[in-house]
Amino acid sequence: MGQGLVTDLYELTMAASYLLRGMTEPATFSLFVRRLPPERGFLVAAGLDDALRRLEELSFDDSDLEYLSDHGFDANALEAFRELRFDGDVWAIPEGHVVFPNEPLLEITAPLPVAQLVETVVLNQITYQTALTTKATRCVLAAAGRAALVDFSLRRTHGIEAGMSAARAAAVAGFSGTSNVEAARRFGIEPVGTMAHSYIETFSDERDAFMAFARDFPDRTTFLVDTYDTERGIQTVLDVADEMHLHGPLGIRLDSGDLLALSIRARNMLDQAGRPEVTIVASGGLDELDVERLLDAGAPIDVFGVGTRVGVSADAPALDSAYKLVEYDGRPVMKLSPGKESRPGPKQVYRSSLAQPDLLATRSEATPAGSKPLLSQVMRGGERTAPPPSLASVHERLSQDLAALTDQAKRLHSPEPTPVEISPALEAVTSAVRADIRAASAPDSG
Amino acid sequence: MGQGLVTDLYELTMAASYLLRGMTEPATFSLFVRRLPPERGFLVAAGLDDALRRLEELSFDDSDLEYLSDHGFDANALEAFRELRFDGDVWAIPEGHVVFPNEPLLEITAPLPVAQLVETVVLNQITYQTALTTKATRCVLAAAGRAALVDFSLRRTHGIEAGMSAARAAAVAGFSGTSNVEAARRFGIEPVGTMAHSYIETFSDERDAFMAFARDFPDRTTFLVDTYDTERGIQTVLDVADEMHLHGPLGIRLDSGDLLALSIRARNMLDQAGRPEVTIVASGGLDELDVERLLDAGAPIDVFGVGTRVGVSADAPALDSAYKLVEYDGRPVMKLSPGKESRPGPKQVYRSSLAQPDLLATRSEATPAGSKPLLSQVMRGGERTAPPPSLASVHERLSQDLAALTDQAKRLHSPEPTPVEISPALEAVTSAVRADIRAASAPDSG
Repeated sequence: MGQGLVTDLYELTMAASYLLRGMTEPATFSLFVRRLPPERGFLVAAGLDDALRRLEELSFDDSDLEYLSDHGFDANALEAFRELRFDGDVWAIPEGHVVFPNEPLLEITAPLPVAQLVETVVLNQITYQTALTTKATRCVLAAAGRAALVDFSLRRTHGIEAGMSAARAAAVAGFSGTSNVEAARRFGIEPVGTMAHSYIETFSDERDAFMAFARDFPDRTTFLVDTYDTERGIQTVLDVADEMHLHGPLGIRLDSGDLLALSIRARNMLDQAGRPEVTIVASGGLDELDVERLLDAGAPIDVFGVGTRVGVSADAPALDSAYKLVEYDGRPVMKLSPGKESRPGPKQVYRSSLAQPDLLATRSEATPAGSKPLLSQVMRGGERTAPPPSLASVHERLSQDLAALTDQAKRLHSPEPTPVEISPALEAVTSAVRADIRAASAPDSG
Repeated sequence: MGQGLVTDLYELTMAASYLLRGMTEPATFSLFVRRLPPERGFLVAAGLDDALRRLEELSFDDSDLEYLSDHGFDANALEAFRELRFDGDVWAIPEGHVVFPNEPLLEITAPLPVAQLVETVVLNQITYQTALTTKATRCVLAAAGRAALVDFSLRRTHGIEAGMSAARAAAVAGFSGTSNVEAARRFGIEPVGTMAHSYIETFSDERDAFMAFARDFPDRTTFLVDTYDTERGIQTVLDVADEMHLHGPLGIRLDSGDLLALSIRARNMLDQAGRPEVTIVASGGLDELDVERLLDAGAPIDVFGVGTRVGVSADAPALDSAYKLVEYDGRPVMKLSPGKESRPGPKQVYRSSLAQPDLLATRSEATPAGSKPLLSQVMRGGERTAPPPSLASVHERLSQDLAALTDQAKRLHSPEPTPVEISPALEAVTSAVRADIRAASAPDSG
């Protein structure tokens, strides 16, 4: 199947109009987030690899063209769509970098119809993956090295594709594993898992269930202890561990109730039984605020399984992203819609350190002393300039950025993003284009 | 590729343990939502068709088995997985029905390892599609026939798969079209679209852009008027329409600013120019509360394009769904975890009318007089009992349910679900099983 219909109708309509009129000069579109959701002081750039893959896959097959033919597209447009591939240039901020509002995550330069057509899929992939990766990163900030995190989100993400992205987002952020086996395979993440309540319930009692599990998976013995009564469950684990002489890595999982009180009680019981090495895993509708609250209160939890609320970025499931035309045929353009004004021309972001404001600049101006450009060319003429980065390298990039990010931007409650400055050259071109548009559309001009 | 690894590791671990132990007697799992999110008075059952398709596709190929072999699964388990297919029975509430908490949306009976393995994908598909369809239905309730709705969500859904589901959810709810062309083709929905700001900006002025578009797509002329200045944009549309003698269906789209004031102003301008037939489309970050507020205030908006906030169900992006073992080998089971207690045994929901409480009952008891069972068998021995229903029939089912639903459950603000009653037989088995578990796990029982 071609992927050409995976877009909004208006992208196809506009592309057809451009093709009909020979408007195929290069256009540059810029993808950025206009403003942060509440409780976000930064974003983590993500989704680029999948966005580029979608660009590589753009094509129209016979059945796509037949559908369009039945829906008002003429033969000329169909012929042009048949030949159409993504053959443009892409500049982007590599995945894993911390970014702020109005900084372009990606800029595409391609013949106008092509650059327009890809808007929908590129926005889709970058928007949701950036949202999920940012949310997972907040969990890592909440844990602050005091506990490990694992991804349990697949069962309630918005589809299987989103589940794969959520697992990858978690790994980029620094989670140590995922329950999602396909994602573990695909991205080289450690697959992790314990047992479900149903496992306990299929046996006539909890003790039999624990013994069976320990016998079948002696190296994977994290026991779920809250099916019937948590304290009794922990005692049963201790009894079974003694009886079976279990000495591998053991753990218990708490999935309900007062996790602070239960984890303290569990730690005491385990330590008093001479089992200080047994780890405590907590799960059950947790998010980064729960992780922070529990650890701040001294909960002796070693591993947090976080799922749904992180896998859907529950408090901010979408970002106010935009994909805006900034230049066509060498002419910088912008729109003036209230609250949605854009800045013209291809851009670059210069960063000296995350403690200082980034500089949003035109792409052509010189790099300020002591700064580095954040966007680099990732695709040239439709071909990637380099293979996709490893997940480890994306994680490393994020870790370095987090280490350098200000506490104001990083804190979980009421964070404040580092401000972004606009270069004088970009201010100048913005003012000039705005004046040109106002003059052109003034009543007395027409 | 097999789909067997698209699951949580613990499903595979438990399935392997069951297979090793010959624990392959029939198990029944029940999928339900424990409680409604805030501001929901009902849910709309959805996702069943995709869930069943996932069941049909369950299999493990060589590469899946090789991965599992490298991750602690032994040869016996791998051989069993190689042969494994979904061969169970499924009962479900058909898509489009209004449902309430604790009512099983779906129940699966299959050999224990199989019924366990499919938990993750079935929960995934039903949870998010039910959330999205419920959200879209709230938009239809907000519009209340006063305006049409179209889906513009693809660019910010959680992936392309979610975008397809969001478009389908919208059509089930009663939206009249979607911008998502692939979804339009796949589900037989009307594809809809206008133009983007970028289209206007590629021309030297707005007038040239409108004229070009009208010439290229004379039957698709909804003009986006807010790129530079909305009132001037509307005047330009009127000028172009006169100059080009446009008499097909015309529309304007407002995508920013004060939509109430602008739509009133636009309506006046259009009417005074003798163009009462020109429709007004509004878009831009809208949700069902905006739709209700604007229409209640008298905004003369004919069509709302709703996107992101509906396509991610922004205020309730996930549901508190569960997939719980309720019977194994003829023995009813339940868990007692605080706040997560489940009810044992296969179930049925009997409904007399949506103005009366539904009856949650055991599956084997007789249908009460005047009631109908909501769950029907949709799969037998791994085969569907009927082809998937048409989207039109799912929409019709929902429409009938909405017509019968109480105003308390339907209203957008602080709705109250119709309560669900428990049959005496289900209460009895619940009490009996609870007592059995408590007796079995009491300290003095050994």
